[in-house]
Amino acid sequence: MRIPLLIAGAISGAIAMTSVFAQAGSTDDSAQATKRYLPEYTESGDLILPKNFHEWVYVGSPLTPNALNGGKANFPEFHNVYIEPGSYAIYKKTGEFPEGTIFFKELQLVLPGQNPDGSRTEASGRGYFPGKFNGADVTVKDSKRYADTGGWGYYNFNHHEPKAATAKVRPKAECAFCHMASAKKDDVWTQFYPLLDN
Amino acid sequence: MRIPLLIAGAISGAIAMTSVFAQAGSTDDSAQATKRYLPEYTESGDLILPKNFHEWVYVGSPLTPNALNGGKANFPEFHNVYIEPGSYAIYKKTGEFPEGTIFFKELQLVLPGQNPDGSRTEASGRGYFPGKFNGADVTVKDSKRYADTGGWGYYNFNHHEPKAATAKVRPKAECAFCHMASAKKDDVWTQFYPLLDN
Repeated sequence: MRIPLLIAGAISGAIAMTSVFAQAGSTDDSAQATKRYLPEYTESGDLILPKNFHEWVYVGSPLTPNALNGGKANFPEFHNVYIEPGSYAIYKKTGEFPEGTIFFKELQLVLPGQNPDGSRTEASGRGYFPGKFNGADVTVKDSKRYADTGGWGYYNFNHHEPKAATAKVRPKAECAFCHMASAKKDDVWTQFYPLLDN
Repeated sequence: MRIPLLIAGAISGAIAMTSVFAQAGSTDDSAQATKRYLPEYTESGDLILPKNFHEWVYVGSPLTPNALNGGKANFPEFHNVYIEPGSYAIYKKTGEFPEGTIFFKELQLVLPGQNPDGSRTEASGRGYFPGKFNGADVTVKDSKRYADTGGWGYYNFNHHEPKAATAKVRPKAECAFCHMASAKKDDVWTQFYPLLDN
């Protein structure tokens, strides 16, 4: 609320304090609905770790524990998946992921378990409980830039902490092929994410 | 971006366009940081289903599948837990959950599995994959209103869809006792939520 006062102090003419506040308020709302965080790259073309992803829209957490995958799961952690909110707002309206859509998959370790399946017992029962964060993977939609991998670029910002500040795009054989073969819609696993499965 | 232009058009004196933009930006940020959604009640004192919880801050998804709990897990779904963002902003600064803090636990069914442990196999491996939403539980901090249950009120908005529009507070024996006995901090399971475990 500090700034409108400063601005108002410098305004001459017919604009009253109240109208400045009201206009600013309504602008904020419409800006919120459409404001997007778009992918940022270094000069050499590496992707910069997306900012503020913990404030993005969470869509789901598939879990493939090591103990159920011969000790060698590709992703033994909870895969907490978020979509950038401005892109999600567009997707809700159009049913298509717009250019520049970012998915952020934060990896979160499963707390160690006493059972052969890797589960442990807590007050709520036997199962899998989240622990420390453990790196992240990021996917960006850009049909031209990533034409060779289905229109999405795949990045690994470490599978441990801290997350890398920047990352290089991964080859098709490492990530894209599986998304292209088995993900339900536009190489996204919408079959696991009801918010996106429309 | 519409309003700064309108304002700038009416400004006389030394404030340049660029400074208006910069100042407006910092105002938006501070407003965002402190805006809160507080609990809403009906006239008879029932809690109204919180709005826009999918835009809240996600903190984690403990999972206690039925198959690992003799077919009778209290919560057989993914427990996707969110905290209201304005309360989270305060918690980050103070380390205390402020009065009016709301936690939203959305329940999300596990997709049916072929294995005795309830797991199924997908492209990423064998494990547990989220499916349809299945109701929600909500917790509200109000030290006076809920003095008998540790300062938090516990609500069940159905363990199926659709979620109830309103809910009555639950007795201590149903929810509070377990939070009071085993949750790490202020009756919240911060041991499973690194964003809150400070």
